[in-house]
Amino acid sequence: MARKIIKSKYFVEEDFVEVLAEVPAGGSSPLPTNQEMKVIGRPVTRLDGYDKVSGTARYTFDINLPHLAHARTLRSPYAHARITAIDAREAAKMPGVLGIIHYQNVDQIPWYGSSFLFDPHLRYVGDEVACVAAETEAAASAALKRIKVEYEELPFVVDAAAAMKQNAPAIHEGGNIQGGKPAVYARGDFDAGLAEADVVVEETFTTQVEVHNPTEVHCSVVNWEGDRLTVWDSTQAIFSVRDTVAQSLGLPASQVRVIKRYMGGGFGSKLTTGKYTVMAALLAQRIGRPVRITLDREEMNLAVGNRPDSVQKLTVAAKKDGTLSAMSHWSYGAVGAYPSGAACSWPLRTIYQCPNVKTEEYSVFINAGPGRPFRAPGHVQGTFALESILDDVAEKLAMDPLEFRRKNHATIDQVMNLPYTSKKLLEAYDAGAKAIGWDRRRKVPGADKGRYQRGLGFASQIWWGAGTPPAGCILKLNRDGSVRLIAGTQDIGTGTYTVMAQVAAEILEIPIERIQVNLGDTAVGPYCPLSGGSLTTPSVTPAVADAALQMKEKLLSAAAAILEVPQGELVYQRGEVRHTGDTSKKKTIVEILREMREQTLLTYGARNANPEGYAINSFGAQFAEVEVDTLTGHVKVIKVVAAHDIGRAVNRLTLENQFHGGILQGIGFALMEERVIDPQTGKVLTVNLHDYKMPTIMDMPEIEVIIVSEADTKISNVGAKGVGEPAMIPTPGAIANAIYNAIGVRLHSLPMTPDKILMALAQKG
Amino acid sequence: MARKIIKSKYFVEEDFVEVLAEVPAGGSSPLPTNQEMKVIGRPVTRLDGYDKVSGTARYTFDINLPHLAHARTLRSPYAHARITAIDAREAAKMPGVLGIIHYQNVDQIPWYGSSFLFDPHLRYVGDEVACVAAETEAAASAALKRIKVEYEELPFVVDAAAAMKQNAPAIHEGGNIQGGKPAVYARGDFDAGLAEADVVVEETFTTQVEVHNPTEVHCSVVNWEGDRLTVWDSTQAIFSVRDTVAQSLGLPASQVRVIKRYMGGGFGSKLTTGKYTVMAALLAQRIGRPVRITLDREEMNLAVGNRPDSVQKLTVAAKKDGTLSAMSHWSYGAVGAYPSGAACSWPLRTIYQCPNVKTEEYSVFINAGPGRPFRAPGHVQGTFALESILDDVAEKLAMDPLEFRRKNHATIDQVMNLPYTSKKLLEAYDAGAKAIGWDRRRKVPGADKGRYQRGLGFASQIWWGAGTPPAGCILKLNRDGSVRLIAGTQDIGTGTYTVMAQVAAEILEIPIERIQVNLGDTAVGPYCPLSGGSLTTPSVTPAVADAALQMKEKLLSAAAAILEVPQGELVYQRGEVRHTGDTSKKKTIVEILREMREQTLLTYGARNANPEGYAINSFGAQFAEVEVDTLTGHVKVIKVVAAHDIGRAVNRLTLENQFHGGILQGIGFALMEERVIDPQTGKVLTVNLHDYKMPTIMDMPEIEVIIVSEADTKISNVGAKGVGEPAMIPTPGAIANAIYNAIGVRLHSLPMTPDKILMALAQKG
Repeated sequence: MARKIIKSKYFVEEDFVEVLAEVPAGGSSPLPTNQEMKVIGRPVTRLDGYDKVSGTARYTFDINLPHLAHARTLRSPYAHARITAIDAREAAKMPGVLGIIHYQNVDQIPWYGSSFLFDPHLRYVGDEVACVAAETEAAASAALKRIKVEYEELPFVVDAAAAMKQNAPAIHEGGNIQGGKPAVYARGDFDAGLAEADVVVEETFTTQVEVHNPTEVHCSVVNWEGDRLTVWDSTQAIFSVRDTVAQSLGLPASQVRVIKRYMGGGFGSKLTTGKYTVMAALLAQRIGRPVRITLDREEMNLAVGNRPDSVQKLTVAAKKDGTLSAMSHWSYGAVGAYPSGAACSWPLRTIYQCPNVKTEEYSVFINAGPGRPFRAPGHVQGTFALESILDDVAEKLAMDPLEFRRKNHATIDQVMNLPYTSKKLLEAYDAGAKAIGWDRRRKVPGADKGRYQRGLGFASQIWWGAGTPPAGCILKLNRDGSVRLIAGTQDIGTGTYTVMAQVAAEILEIPIERIQVNLGDTAVGPYCPLSGGSLTTPSVTPAVADAALQMKEKLLSAAAAILEVPQGELVYQRGEVRHTGDTSKKKTIVEILREMREQTLLTYGARNANPEGYAINSFGAQFAEVEVDTLTGHVKVIKVVAAHDIGRAVNRLTLENQFHGGILQGIGFALMEERVIDPQTGKVLTVNLHDYKMPTIMDMPEIEVIIVSEADTKISNVGAKGVGEPAMIPTPGAIANAIYNAIGVRLHSLPMTPDKILMALAQKG
Repeated sequence: MARKIIKSKYFVEEDFVEVLAEVPAGGSSPLPTNQEMKVIGRPVTRLDGYDKVSGTARYTFDINLPHLAHARTLRSPYAHARITAIDAREAAKMPGVLGIIHYQNVDQIPWYGSSFLFDPHLRYVGDEVACVAAETEAAASAALKRIKVEYEELPFVVDAAAAMKQNAPAIHEGGNIQGGKPAVYARGDFDAGLAEADVVVEETFTTQVEVHNPTEVHCSVVNWEGDRLTVWDSTQAIFSVRDTVAQSLGLPASQVRVIKRYMGGGFGSKLTTGKYTVMAALLAQRIGRPVRITLDREEMNLAVGNRPDSVQKLTVAAKKDGTLSAMSHWSYGAVGAYPSGAACSWPLRTIYQCPNVKTEEYSVFINAGPGRPFRAPGHVQGTFALESILDDVAEKLAMDPLEFRRKNHATIDQVMNLPYTSKKLLEAYDAGAKAIGWDRRRKVPGADKGRYQRGLGFASQIWWGAGTPPAGCILKLNRDGSVRLIAGTQDIGTGTYTVMAQVAAEILEIPIERIQVNLGDTAVGPYCPLSGGSLTTPSVTPAVADAALQMKEKLLSAAAAILEVPQGELVYQRGEVRHTGDTSKKKTIVEILREMREQTLLTYGARNANPEGYAINSFGAQFAEVEVDTLTGHVKVIKVVAAHDIGRAVNRLTLENQFHGGILQGIGFALMEERVIDPQTGKVLTVNLHDYKMPTIMDMPEIEVIIVSEADTKISNVGAKGVGEPAMIPTPGAIANAIYNAIGVRLHSLPMTPDKILMALAQKG
């Protein structure tokens, strides 16, 4: 465990990641292109890599406090029921039990809008009934079994189609259609567009419920000091947790401190505050001890969110020349027992040029765990359906699918009628097609007859990628030239620590090893947005750049005063301010701070507002080659080429990691992952990783990532767009089209499991 | 444990500490007087009070990390020796032992200037030989006994007088007089002053070695993450610990994070970085686990500092009219085995008007634990001697001691020849004399003859009290009007959390309950000075005020833009900006932030530089009434009146706490505390709280604290001076003079234990 120690000296050559070129200072003017960069854009390994591989990285679960108690939750065994009586006296007498809370002994804290933290009206198998704190998890679990609960069972429905029927059991007052009506959108004249079409295709697609299942399960550790609460939480949004917990407990925001240092994955289920966090806080308050609550894999699969399923009926009409004349999208999806969203028509509305579009979407309540945003909400399922039907239309038109997309390339955002700050989708088509060898694609799908049949397919992607203010960063420069960055964002495993340090290292021209980054603490970090929606890098890195550029200004003006020369005659280089003419005139950071009588210099950088009058989106195309075993129905993804426009790539390595993860998650959604509910009992049958099939390293295809974009200078000084979601959006669509190209049969239902493949081949005959 | 929870609402009446008056905004102009204040100056109870009394406050010792190992130190059994051989192989095989370090297996890290972290040349009983990390403290202690060390014993000296002799054993090259020569000072012509005097008194005084002995022993917990080190440390100076540890390990400052949340007392022994902290870091690095090292009470009494003793020979000459014409101070003191300081003549040089002064002081090495600054270094012992002899001179002049001091009141700093920003010592005399009933003082000392004899005495005090830049504070304002203050200072138990919150609450006119304060973390806190020398409040509160005034400016200008009115027509009141004319025009903080599209607002405040051309000091006089039991020799302090000039009192309650602690510590030094070394063996005989007598609550006199000063607006916007040291400086002198007034015999040696009292009474006959 003896570790190499970086010697403390000032800015000598070997101290550097590599020799650094100069970066123009002043203002928050855009940074130069990556070609001119020495740290930004490079595949810099994670600053926190060692911590993670060595096991010294402390995750929420590792927080250990004196007298720590452990909590477990009693959950509804019924899909729909009402608690008529609850008696926890016997459970309270069990050895090691410290406290029990349920709807009868705590205030009714509003949750899910119309429901409560503990609601006697239970709406799904897994809904929270009571929570026990004990000396050990085992003791708490044992006590759960002794809590006497009398339930009045109610009729339930776990299927969206059934739930939409008139006589269906009502899960909420006002019925099972969220908001009472569908979300509708229309532009142009759909019927007119249909009339002028030469080819019309109508198809229905379905997608399954997918569960986030991050490696690290949800976990909170809470500790009261007087009426101040500290929450260590595995969350993608420390400030939302702070505000929700503060509101739930009636505390000012400053009395709740939320800390998250390391995280084992967050794909949307950790975006919203968990009931378990507030339950732990209430128990801790009651028993006067810190409390840890860790969900197990079953709870993870029942109660903390999922990607709503979808039934999507699409109509696409086009003219002989391949121009789209009309598109419609009618869909519904099950959001589970509490409000969420199942809309998935956005890609169809915007990504391709089409004057006449209408969409109608229903979010439907069923007696199942609540939906939550999941890596590109709506877009993954919507893109699968859209890109599948477009390939079928292209075939009817006897057009190459790629040509067909090019033909309908949209130059502006047709919903908001705004130009894009940048759109390099056509470049992505070219680069991707070249890399996958698109010319190899067989013209007649399913032409060859062997057991193993290969095919190529692709799909396009659009996402919102700009990031947003407010996002702030404090930069502390020490006398020895070492730096501390402090921000209220959170690194959810994507490399935020590293990209922030890169930006500061680049601008201040100091070795990245000298930069430490403090994130994930609401008490000390300036506010930053949640880490979801691919927001983090594009939101936070501009604030870092702003702070670093300000710091350089500070050093230059201080040196000008000390050297008594005009600031214009000075340049900053590698921790030193030099006179352009008289080389004897120079001051290192340590000298400048000493003469300023400062121990540290501090600047505060902020993310700029996004430009008015533009749509800001990321774009991309993924090309997949698959091999279908026509005997077993097994689909093997051979290779995926991901060609994307994501503005500036800040870290080539962590960026590729994002694509590897996103594409593999896309393969899981396309081929295997599915939550299954028994319609007879309303119980989830796939509550563990044996029954819920997730892709593993064995399913990993060869992946080639091509970035076709440079910095989008209209957005911010850094000009990055997010990559978290774009990485996954087009994958299932590309695979579906590749499968069709391989076997010549179109599959309309995800996941495309071997049984469905074999059935399709049989029907093809 | 159910806690009252403050409801989260916006600025309604009952939400406030009390209705708040307006505070002028803008700049860092001085704040109004305490009369106009609603929070500042009030006896606000500590924000961290509940944490401490409830046991939820986590001290360094409470930090508990997974796989925490425990370290113990092997210390020299000899007062002076050289290690000739060390063999830790057997110890390493003991059960639970994880690692052992000593001078042969770690780099020689410089320490105490010319020595090392592990120096084979051992200079006192307790000097560090080796350090063991093990699964438990017991296992580590057991292993210590199995480390085979061969020592070459060397002649030693534990008495300063003996150490100064030519043939004394040399503890360092260059002999035992630190720096090779005395520190000398002179002004005017001493001999001429002596010649013109009518009365000359020459006396010799001695004071003992006092050990800090805070309630909480020294403790560090260290944890490596890669090559980043986190140190939880019971320290008065987080940034010095950061820099010393970083230097010792060759790390950039930013790779070392030092955290100190709560502390059980710090009186100077926790000002400098402990060897134990670096040893723990080295062990943790070696064994790849976090390490906790806790000193026991014996180590506390041997190895982490003490107040050097003193032998002081004073000559004071005065004219008939009571004018001082000449003073001299010749002294030496034992600083222990490593460099420190024993000078104690400063009060004599400055506090009273005298044209002819000379001082000569020797800091002497002996084979004993190192000296360290101790609550008013030099001043306590120097003031005891000075104020004792001045009373004797006054008696010879047949002058009232108080009149004598008034006669010689100094109007400027005679060493630097500068005026004082403020000096209210005469006011302190008047107020103190009135409160104690000085007119009751018997004119003939020791006149009455009963068993119990009472007397009154007093002494004056001078100290440096301005505080200093750099000291910064970040202020984060949340949408709900709650506030977070973040600073790199440390609350060592004196109420820093509370005084900082008061200043922000006063200026921003929000309830103090809504303000949270984060201190004691080098990673996230702006640099602030160490907490010693009575620096903290006068250094840090002006930075808070600056940040709060800036925040008010920000809110006013933002509101002006939103309301589209000139900022001059707006006033800020209780979290709301109102138009002076049109009452309909107003915006709360929450509205302003929402319209600014901000979640939090952030300002950075800094402590101003101190004014040029001034001496900045605090002053005070303490009056003591004692009762001497002439049968047992026991002295009971009946009452102490402390009348002081400390600028603005920021918190009347924590300020009085400081005086209670300081006066009791002064009583300990005056009457009982003493480190005793066996001259035959060089071993300390008083290594526990049974043998080392400290005052307890039973020794607590009635204490009356009178503050005669208002804000010193020349210093800073807050205008506070520190009170930590002033509280203790005059106490022993006042008690000594009261004892003389009671029994008519002068005691020249501290502590004034019963045996010395009885001996003095016997000599008096």
